Order: sequence, then structure tokens, then C-alpha cells
Amino acid sequence: MYSFFDILDLLGTLAFAISGALAGRERRLDLFGMSILAFATAIGGGTVRDVMIGYTPVMWLTNLNYFFITLFGVFLAIIFYKKFNFLRYSLFLFDTIGIAVFTLIGIEKGMNVGLHPIICVTLGTITACFGGVIRDILANKIPIIFKQEIYATACILGGLMYYVLNYFELSKDILYIGTAGIIIVIRLLAVKYKWSLPFATV
Amino acid sequence: MYSFFDILDLLGTLAFAISGALAGRERRLDLFGMSILAFATAIGGGTVRDVMIGYTPVMWLTNLNYFFITLFGVFLAIIFYKKFNFLRYSLFLFDTIGIAVFTLIGIEKGMNVGLHPIICVTLGTITACFGGVIRDILANKIPIIFKQEIYATACILGGLMYYVLNYFELSKDILYIGTAGIIIVIRLLAVKYKWSLPFATV
Amino acid sequence: MYSFFDILDLLGTLAFAISGALAGRERRLDLFGMSILAFATAIGGGTVRDVMIGYTPVMWLTNLNYFFITLFGVFLAIIFYKKFNFLRYSLFLFDTIGIAVFTLIGIEKGMNVGLHPIICVTLGTITACFGGVIRDILANKIPIIFKQEIYATACILGGLMYYVLNYFELSKDILYIGTAGIIIVIRLLAVKYKWSLPFATV
Repeated sequence: MYSFFDILDLLGTLAFAISGALAGRERRLDLFGMSILAFATAIGGGTVRDVMIGYTPVMWLTNLNYFFITLFGVFLAIIFYKKFNFLRYSLFLFDTIGIAVFTLIGIEKGMNVGLHPIICVTLGTITACFGGVIRDILANKIPIIFKQEIYATACILGGLMYYVLNYFELSKDILYIGTAGIIIVIRLLAVKYKWSLPFATV
Repeated sequence: MYSFFDILDLLGTLAFAISGALAGRERRLDLFGMSILAFATAIGGGTVRDVMIGYTPVMWLTNLNYFFITLFGVFLAIIFYKKFNFLRYSLFLFDTIGIAVFTLIGIEKGMNVGLHPIICVTLGTITACFGGVIRDILANKIPIIFKQEIYATACILGGLMYYVLNYFELSKDILYIGTAGIIIVIRLLAVKYKWSLPFATV
Repeated sequence: MYSFFDILDLLGTLAFAISGALAGRERRLDLFGMSILAFATAIGGGTVRDVMIGYTPVMWLTNLNYFFITLFGVFLAIIFYKKFNFLRYSLFLFDTIGIAVFTLIGIEKGMNVGLHPIICVTLGTITACFGGVIRDILANKIPIIFKQEIYATACILGGLMYYVLNYFELSKDILYIGTAGIIIVIRLLAVKYKWSLPFATV
């Protein structure tokens, strides 16, 4: 059976896959190029994390859900290509859920290997953000999150919240909801109020 | 002793190394840059595959043939730089043999780790194609196989053929010849008739 | 306690982190982008090496010094941004010490896993040079060391010296000083006299 958490993970993967496939379409790539960008975005962050901690074969090689969800994302991106202007907001919501859940997964994978909290938060941020970084590198652009409004910062702050809640030995449910909640709220506010980090001049 | 299969593997590696070194020469890189592009093209796909399945140290760290064949490819690329217009067709043939053999190696490595057939075909395709992807990223270009005529698709179809032949429990020889044959034939036809996947606009 | 060698390692890491952060600043990235470029430059080479030999979790996940030194480098790059024109020479010296020490670390890690000397020298060169390669790829440029004056070549020659000295069974101290010395001297001479490898046309 799938937990609520697994379903959010797959929703996030789907949103990331669609965003990757759309980026490929915009760069006028063919079906294969679109698919690679979708895979890179959806599973790139988790792959980098798993490879660095030595969790191999990496997650998507043994859990086929990631594979099929990503292909489904490519399919949706092709079918609804023109409609995605209208759907942009839902996509943004999914993406935001995605980075929240991916951050949590990254943190917990790091803890399972016994790594330091600071490193675990870093792994959470890598899981959430590096798919997009790889997507942009493959599309021959400077990664958008190096310049964009608050994105990775939301993951880092969520990660810190995780350890604050963990310190008070609250239940797993509260831990997850609190961490993901902070990430989602910061991300939504950052986009609404155009928060950005210093030094960026797009 | 080397098997016929090993020799094809080294021929493919050589073709990939030459293609990488030539790409470096065209981008006006120095000898080191040319060599890195040669190595990236020749062993990049296998390295990504080995790292993801956890087969470490990765293949070229323990089998020195890859190292010397790649250096030999750089040497040939320098010596025959101007002649490669005439040699282009042989190079294309070697490259096509290369992707066929690399696909087979990737599939079998995945099977050795007990992965699902779909994932094994993916690993075969990664082995065959990601060297070229890394070469293009290092040369600061959008990977050509994201836009080009049928290339990765030939590997994927060859991979499917592998499992069809495997299902009928045919001998290893037939399995290899059938799989590699399909890949080579599709690739040759794709280039001859300019087949391409949908959505590409170079 | 830290050995003299550890301190040189951290000095090199610091120089690499500053160079990465400055590159990010020049590309007008935000604080997060600058930090990622700093991390990529400082720990990228060691990460690629560890992942390929299967030494996981990779070094900076378990040794937090790399993490904090890199953040400190980002801090310095921001504070002294305008002063770094004057500090450029110290930075260049640190960087040169960095590649010498990183080469040594890479060679010895390879030897610990029982790899062939040629491969160990390659791993040393990767440790020293690939951080800069990843930095340039993330900044969407062709890696500078593919075109620049002698850089990786110094590491390769230093690596050969390591095995010459090792062959005569000299003490570790002489081994380290001789290897690092060769790298540093070649690098300094190469910059002073504008040595370059053939084929480069910047």
C-alpha cells in the first residue's frame, strides 16, 4: 500500500517531469530530448544524492514508479502543451509540494546513513533542487535557481525546522507537516512578494 | 584472450574517442581539452551506468584497455585530422558498432545486478548515448542526440529485441547478433532516410 | 590533531571556494548560486573521484571541515570582493598549493583501493581539476582548463614524479614535497612564461 507521503512523492515527481518535458519542448528538442529532460528533472536530484551517499542501485533503478510517472509526465506535457498556460498554477503548486517532499526524503536518507544534520539538510536541498539544475545544464542554460527568487532557501529553512521539531521529539506526522508546511509557505510567499537573495541581477 | 565481443567493444570505444577528440579540435581546445572530450565520449556512458548501479571502481579504473584505446583515439584524431573527411564513413560505421555493443554491455550489467528489463534497456541506452551527451555538455552545446535523427531510439528498440530473443531462450550468439543487428540496421536506415522523432526542429 | 598536510588541504579548499564564489559573483548569480559554484569548485573534484572509486559517503559528507571552509570562502568572497584584484596573487598561490595537495590526495586514495599507477595519477588530476570543470559547466562556459596554459599537465607530471620517488622508496615527506614541488614549480613557470599545450587557440 502507498502512504500519503508516497503519493505526494509521486505527485512531486510528476510535476518535475512535466516541467522538464516542457523545457525540452521550448528548446525544440525531439521526443527523446524531452524525455531525457523530464527524467533529469524528476529523478536527477535523488540520483545525485543516492550516488554520493552510496545508496546503489539508485532509487529509480529499483522502484519503477519513478520511471512510469516520469513517462506519464512526458505524455501529459505533449498532450496539454498549449493548455499549460492555464494549468501553470496547478503545476506550480505540484512543484512546490514536490520540493517539500523531496527535501524530507533527502534528509531522512542522510539520517539513515548516520550523517550530520547539516549534511542531511544539504542532501535534502540537493534532492529538491538538483533535478532542475541538471535540466538547465542539459538545456545549455545557467541554472535558473542560481538567480531566481527564494527556492533552495525554502528547502534549507524547512530542513532547519525539521531538526527543531525533531529536537522536541514530536511525532513523525507533525515533523513532516511542519517541515513541508514551512517550505511550501516560504515558497508561496517568496513568489507572491518577489523575495530574492542578495547579489542577483537577472 | 579477447573474445570477438571484447574486440567490438574496443572498436566502439576507439570510434567514440576519435569523435570526442575531433569535437575538441573543432572547438579549438588544447591537447588536454581534446583528451578530456575523448575520454568523456568513450567512457562517460559506462561511467554513469556503473556509478548508478554501484559497480565501483567503475570499469575503466580497473580495465586499462579503455584508457589506452582512448589515448590512441586522440593520437589518431591529431594525426589524421584533415583526412577524417574521407574517413568519416568508417568512423560512422565504428560509431554504429559502438552503440550496438555498448547497449548490449549496459543491458547485461543491469541484469547481473538483478534489475528489471525496462531498467536494463535504459541502462543500455545510457551506456551507448551518455558519453556523447557529456561530450556536448563539456563543449557547451545542447546534446546533439536530443535533436538528431534516430539514435537512442535504435538502442531502445535493440534492447526490446534482446528481451524478445531472450524470451525464446535462444543462444547467446543469436541474442547478441540479433540485438546488435537491429540497432545497426535501424541506425543506418535512419541516417539514409533521415528518419527523426516528432517535435524536433533543429 | 591536524597534520601540515591537512592544513594545506584546507587552504587549497579555501582558495578553490573563493574562486568559485567569485565566478558566481561575476556571472551575477545570487547568494545561493555563488555558494553552489563555491562548493562545486572546492569539493567537485574529490566528489567525482570518490563516486568513481566507490568511496561513499563521499569525503565532504563525513568530514565537515570541507563544508565550513567552503562557506567561509563564500563569506570572504563577498566581503573582499573589490579587494580581490589586489589579493589576486595570494589567491593564485593558494590555488596552486590546492592543485598540488589535491593531486596527492587523489593519487593516495587510488592506491588505497589498489588501482594501477596510471589510473591513480588520473584520479589525482581529476581531484585537482574537475572542481573547476564543474564550476565552468554550471556557469555555462567551456571549461577554462581545456584551453588555458599548463594546468592539468602540471598535475600529471607531478603524479609521474610521485611514482619515480616512490620507486626509490624515499620517505613520505620527501615523496609529498617532491610531488607538490614539481606541480607548483611547473604551474608557476607556465604562468610566468605563458606555456601552453598545442592546438589551443583561445
